[in-house]
Amino acid sequence: MLAIALVHYPVVNKNGQTIGSAVTNLDIHDIARAARTFGAGAYFVVTPYADQRCLVDEIVGHWREGYGAGYNPARKDALSLVRVADNLAAVVASMGQECGRPPFVVATSAKAGGKNVGYQELRRQIVSGQPTLLLFGTAHGLAQEVIDMADAMLPPIYGADDYNHLPVRSAVSIILDRLVGAVRD
Amino acid sequence: MLAIALVHYPVVNKNGQTIGSAVTNLDIHDIARAARTFGAGAYFVVTPYADQRCLVDEIVGHWREGYGAGYNPARKDALSLVRVADNLAAVVASMGQECGRPPFVVATSAKAGGKNVGYQELRRQIVSGQPTLLLFGTAHGLAQEVIDMADAMLPPIYGADDYNHLPVRSAVSIILDRLVGAVRD
Repeated sequence: MLAIALVHYPVVNKNGQTIGSAVTNLDIHDIARAARTFGAGAYFVVTPYADQRCLVDEIVGHWREGYGAGYNPARKDALSLVRVADNLAAVVASMGQECGRPPFVVATSAKAGGKNVGYQELRRQIVSGQPTLLLFGTAHGLAQEVIDMADAMLPPIYGADDYNHLPVRSAVSIILDRLVGAVRD
Repeated sequence: MLAIALVHYPVVNKNGQTIGSAVTNLDIHDIARAARTFGAGAYFVVTPYADQRCLVDEIVGHWREGYGAGYNPARKDALSLVRVADNLAAVVASMGQECGRPPFVVATSAKAGGKNVGYQELRRQIVSGQPTLLLFGTAHGLAQEVIDMADAMLPPIYGADDYNHLPVRSAVSIILDRLVGAVRD
C-alpha cells in the first residue's frame, strides 16, 4: 500500500519556528483527488487538534454520506481515502497493522537533505509491493524532527531554476505522477 | 516562450453544456506558483467577463504592488507572470507579437482525443525554442471549439486506473513537470 500523510504538526513557519497549521478544505479535496487518481490506498490528515479533526470529518462526511455523495460520486470516491489521525506514530502503527509490516517512511521537502532515495528507486520499491508512506508538510514544511524520523527523503522538485515555492497540492501531484503515474511516451 | 492559458470560457459543465466559469483565487495562486517554478514566461487568465478580469487585477495587485509584495516576495515573483485576457485569440496574438511567430497551441483534456502530441515530443519542441501555449479548461474542461482550434492535444494523465478527476491545478503541475521539469534520477 502507498499512502500519503499531510502533516499539520509539527511543521515550521516562515521563520523556521515549529508550529501547528490549520486544516484547509482545499488540501483535503485536491490531495484526495490526486491520491485517488494515482491509486494511493489512504490519505491521512494528521493534526493533534480535536476541533480540526472534527472539521475534517464534517467536510468529508458531506461528500461521503451527505448531499455531495449523490451530487458528485467521483468526489465521494476520492474522499473515501481520507483518514484522520492525531499524529504520525498512529499513522505508521495503523499502516503496519494493515500491511503486516511497517511502512517505509519517506519525507518530502523543498530543501535538499540527507538520506535521499531517488524517484526511480522508490518507484521500483513501490511496484515491488513495499508499503510506503509519503510525508508532506503544510505551512513552510515538515519540522526537522519529522524528517529525522523518516527512513528516507525524496529530492526537491526543481524546474527552471532554484525557485521552488510550489503549493503542497502541486508537490503531491507531481511526486505521485513520478512514483506511480502510468508510463508515458 | 512557454505559456499557460487557464480558460474560463468556453468550457463545459457536468452535462456537457458550454458555460463560462468563475475565476477562483486559488487557481490564480497555485497555477502562478507552478508556472514560476517551471519557468513559464506567462500565465494568461482568460475570461470574457469584465468584472472577473477586475477581480483578477485586484488579487494580483495586492501581491505585486500592495502589502503582499513585501510580506511574501516569492509570491510576488510568481504572480508577476499573470496576465488577464478577454479571449484566446487575444492571447495567441499577443504571444505571436512577442515571439515573432505564432505559438504552437496545445489543448489538454481528461478525455483522450485526436491530434495527439506526446510529452517527450513536445518537450523536445519546447527545448528547441518553439513558442508554446498550453490550454487548460476550468469546470469540466475545454469546450470542443477550443480543442478544435488547437494545433495538438496532450494525452490525458492516468494513474492507477481510468479515474482521472484531477483538479486543474494538479494537471497543470504534472504537465509542466513532464514537459520542462529538471531531469530526475
